[in-house]
Amino acid sequence: MASVSIKKIPITRVNNQEVTDTTDALAMEEPLEIRLEYGPENERKVQNVSVTMRTPGNDAELATGFLFTEGIIKSKAEIADVGYCFIACAENRENVIQVNLVPGIVPDLHNTERNFYTTSSCGVCGKGSINAIRTVSAFTQQEKHQIVVNAELLYNLPVILQHHQAIFADTGALHASALFNLKGELQLVREDVGRHNALDKLIGASLNHNHLPLDNSILLLSGRASFELIQKAAMAGVQIIAAVGAPSSLAVELAEEFNITLTGFLRNKRFNIYTAAHRILLPAYEITN
Amino acid sequence: MASVSIKKIPITRVNNQEVTDTTDALAMEEPLEIRLEYGPENERKVQNVSVTMRTPGNDAELATGFLFTEGIIKSKAEIADVGYCFIACAENRENVIQVNLVPGIVPDLHNTERNFYTTSSCGVCGKGSINAIRTVSAFTQQEKHQIVVNAELLYNLPVILQHHQAIFADTGALHASALFNLKGELQLVREDVGRHNALDKLIGASLNHNHLPLDNSILLLSGRASFELIQKAAMAGVQIIAAVGAPSSLAVELAEEFNITLTGFLRNKRFNIYTAAHRILLPAYEITN
Repeated sequence: MASVSIKKIPITRVNNQEVTDTTDALAMEEPLEIRLEYGPENERKVQNVSVTMRTPGNDAELATGFLFTEGIIKSKAEIADVGYCFIACAENRENVIQVNLVPGIVPDLHNTERNFYTTSSCGVCGKGSINAIRTVSAFTQQEKHQIVVNAELLYNLPVILQHHQAIFADTGALHASALFNLKGELQLVREDVGRHNALDKLIGASLNHNHLPLDNSILLLSGRASFELIQKAAMAGVQIIAAVGAPSSLAVELAEEFNITLTGFLRNKRFNIYTAAHRILLPAYEITN
Repeated sequence: MASVSIKKIPITRVNNQEVTDTTDALAMEEPLEIRLEYGPENERKVQNVSVTMRTPGNDAELATGFLFTEGIIKSKAEIADVGYCFIACAENRENVIQVNLVPGIVPDLHNTERNFYTTSSCGVCGKGSINAIRTVSAFTQQEKHQIVVNAELLYNLPVILQHHQAIFADTGALHASALFNLKGELQLVREDVGRHNALDKLIGASLNHNHLPLDNSILLLSGRASFELIQKAAMAGVQIIAAVGAPSSLAVELAEEFNITLTGFLRNKRFNIYTAAHRILLPAYEITN
């Protein structure tokens, strides 16, 4: 992993009055084109669905995770295979990945025209965006089982992630998404220069291992929580999200609408609870009970 | 500004054993649809060019900056006017902005099909992406005049920005792009939940004030430097970029290709120089000269 995700280059380091010629490790960033092949067996079509700037590695997970969180595919069973483009792409095949759907499966491509937000009744208002997601998500029904986590357990998650986030330590440039079980044990980490890509990789891996919905896990985000990240988490059925950074206004609105517990600024034994606080067992409760 | 860019909500703050009900300021995030009206006077067309999740405020700058940095328009003279959508958008007009081009101007829309990176000969490789930009940029010719900045001057820029970044201080959630003159004086700041939007707003404002190309300024980025940000800066003719965070591999390649000075990790009187070091007057040189 680390070898493809990092590039070492010569740099000049300036530190107050000291100037040193040295090398620095950069997070790799390369475009990835995601193509979809679908249709009946005798009439296959290939369509370019997205180009994203990503850190190479786990590309199949990224492609399947993206297709799932955008509502284009509904389950792993719809995928026949995933592979880099070999024939049509002589020059740069590791930057083109193709997902082949099972013959007969019709992908839901109406959301990919870069106007996801304009398909709803309200045009481009936050509420419209939220409603658009509700209609395409497979896991945004009523809560099936009640999960609860301890505040103390949350404190430890960023520390555990940092120990595992090898590339970040080198480059200082990668976002991470991580899954923990309800005991606070790390289950899965994915990293990328794009925060949405890190989460798509994580959800793609979970889809591949038949672990969806993620309603029995805690999702840790290494940075800020935007609308787009909460949207993707909602698509995967996540119930508890902990972000090391700040959430945006629309991220909070979406979390509230979908009854997702959203905490932010999780660092140094502190955090804020923005929505659905009932899943966090607070210190005061522990003392009195 | 602050009033539309911030939303206050009730939260629960957990700090070790202390639980407090309080309010928190969130950075506003709302979708903005950018529409373009163009064509001859008797045959106007309206096209949806992009939907971006942005922090409301400076939307006209964002729209024009986006059109310019994506190579869709070439100059301010091509714009007749910019305004929110009033007639067709009864419900949510402040999230739809329309740029009307001067009759007869033909926008270059071939890059907006979300395959900017696939238009070049090499498909989706980094080199292809870089070549694609070269062909559309108005200001990536040879250097017209040599500019040089002092390392000491760079140290101060993040401190000055922090004093001016009012919303960030409140929410911890906004990216900023800032322009400084060669004396290190702050000229312009724009903030947004999306780092590319903050830079588009800055460049849109500069376009509006006839300050392009920005070849006599220092561009400060509050976070990491991605390919997309260097691309936008290159389109505006920027020669010196200082980032508080880390650059990606492709950001460095693009900066090198366009002879842009790129520095990163600018904090606590330190920074790294990745490309075109000749524009930075280093401490050692100062001592010996």
